[in-house]
Amino acid sequence: MKRIRIVRHRQGEAPRTAIDAVAGEEPLEIRVDTRPIAVVMRTPGHDVELALGFLVSEGLIRRPSEVLDVRLNPRNAAGNSIDVLLSPEVAVDFGRLTRHVFASSSCGICGATSIQAVRRQFPPLDPAPGVPAETLVALPDRLRESQDEFSSTGGLHAAGLFDASGRLLAVREDVGRHNAVDKLLGWGFREGRLPLRDVGLLVSGRVSFEIVQKALAGGIALVAAVSAPSSLAVDFARRNGQTLIGFLREGRFNVYSGTVG
Amino acid sequence: MKRIRIVRHRQGEAPRTAIDAVAGEEPLEIRVDTRPIAVVMRTPGHDVELALGFLVSEGLIRRPSEVLDVRLNPRNAAGNSIDVLLSPEVAVDFGRLTRHVFASSSCGICGATSIQAVRRQFPPLDPAPGVPAETLVALPDRLRESQDEFSSTGGLHAAGLFDASGRLLAVREDVGRHNAVDKLLGWGFREGRLPLRDVGLLVSGRVSFEIVQKALAGGIALVAAVSAPSSLAVDFARRNGQTLIGFLREGRFNVYSGTVG
Repeated sequence: MKRIRIVRHRQGEAPRTAIDAVAGEEPLEIRVDTRPIAVVMRTPGHDVELALGFLVSEGLIRRPSEVLDVRLNPRNAAGNSIDVLLSPEVAVDFGRLTRHVFASSSCGICGATSIQAVRRQFPPLDPAPGVPAETLVALPDRLRESQDEFSSTGGLHAAGLFDASGRLLAVREDVGRHNAVDKLLGWGFREGRLPLRDVGLLVSGRVSFEIVQKALAGGIALVAAVSAPSSLAVDFARRNGQTLIGFLREGRFNVYSGTVG
Repeated sequence: MKRIRIVRHRQGEAPRTAIDAVAGEEPLEIRVDTRPIAVVMRTPGHDVELALGFLVSEGLIRRPSEVLDVRLNPRNAAGNSIDVLLSPEVAVDFGRLTRHVFASSSCGICGATSIQAVRRQFPPLDPAPGVPAETLVALPDRLRESQDEFSSTGGLHAAGLFDASGRLLAVREDVGRHNAVDKLLGWGFREGRLPLRDVGLLVSGRVSFEIVQKALAGGIALVAAVSAPSSLAVDFARRNGQTLIGFLREGRFNVYSGTVG
């Protein structure tokens, strides 16, 4: 958990500065015998268990005797890389690892340079278009109305693109919120509208690093979420010129990055 | 959305069979110029947009002219593999792809054989230990009590391991629910308790394929969730001898796989 400064907006009241807590999110690179096999976005804490459990999930290890040691990678000062050293009798078929496997040999987002690594690929954005607070607070109902009952009662995540007047341009749903956003980027791509400079993104749940990164890739400078942002989502948005709004519901919202109105 | 047969339990009433809707979840393999670059677990629909948006997110494409064609991979009868053919002028640096990248050359979980592929690695389980309905309905409050206020109000996902008497053995939290489960598997691994035969898993949110797969890897035959399961989580649990419980809250729950009591 990290405490950060935000601005609270509530209908009929003047915006005011406040301190809010956000869930910690940082990347963790998992290495087996010094070979990077995965990067997961996690809340720091119990990292040794996380690395070991990941290897259990992948079917690499089952018994404590198969692991000689687990320790932080001394070359990663941020504490976001962990080494699992296996017993020589454990035969690892790296080709069988099926998920989250990185092709690259180093974790560009695991160190102090994490955000810079993404910035090299996608430059920071110009400030988001001004969207009045009254327009923002009307968005969640519009998103829900565009879903059917099953979806809106929690079956699926929804994401929508809206213009400065609050009109929804496209809405997509998925069990994975990142997929709903990718579907919107695909819509923008097919329509020849990338980068989506004058468009905001609304997501029905929380907003993690992955969501603001995808927004940046699509050129979207305004991201709003019905639930909470993670610490890395806030950091990322602040460094890339993105306005980030959370807890947009029931006539109120918090501004975690940028300004509104 | 898929409709399936379930058993509803409600305190003070006899269990009854019902038909319930669950969100569709299936893998989609994304191939670029016939080379597999990622598998995402998604809700079918708008698959072309999803594939294109994923490539936009990865920084591979920006303009419609860069894509010659997008079509289903004819060799995948299930419709879970999609081919994006790029224009020859687009230079793809496959080494720069940073996430969700598969090392293996074929998607074992993308076809009719998806569940069998996982079963080859982890055999089906014996039936879960009998846990009375009264024990189950008390679990969510215990999980919440083990979290602090910030976490329990939605900041973080929680997951816990419980025994047949309803005692919580370990609780872990994370922004990613899959990480919370991996942390628990890592706990069981360090304690020398794998496979976790007589232990149930409770998660604070939804339960997807990934969660029941991780439970299977840990030898856990009873999975309970406060929110909804996905279609693939139900399929997977049914084929692997796992009891799967959803919407465990306010004195009631649904049984999607196996039996309770």
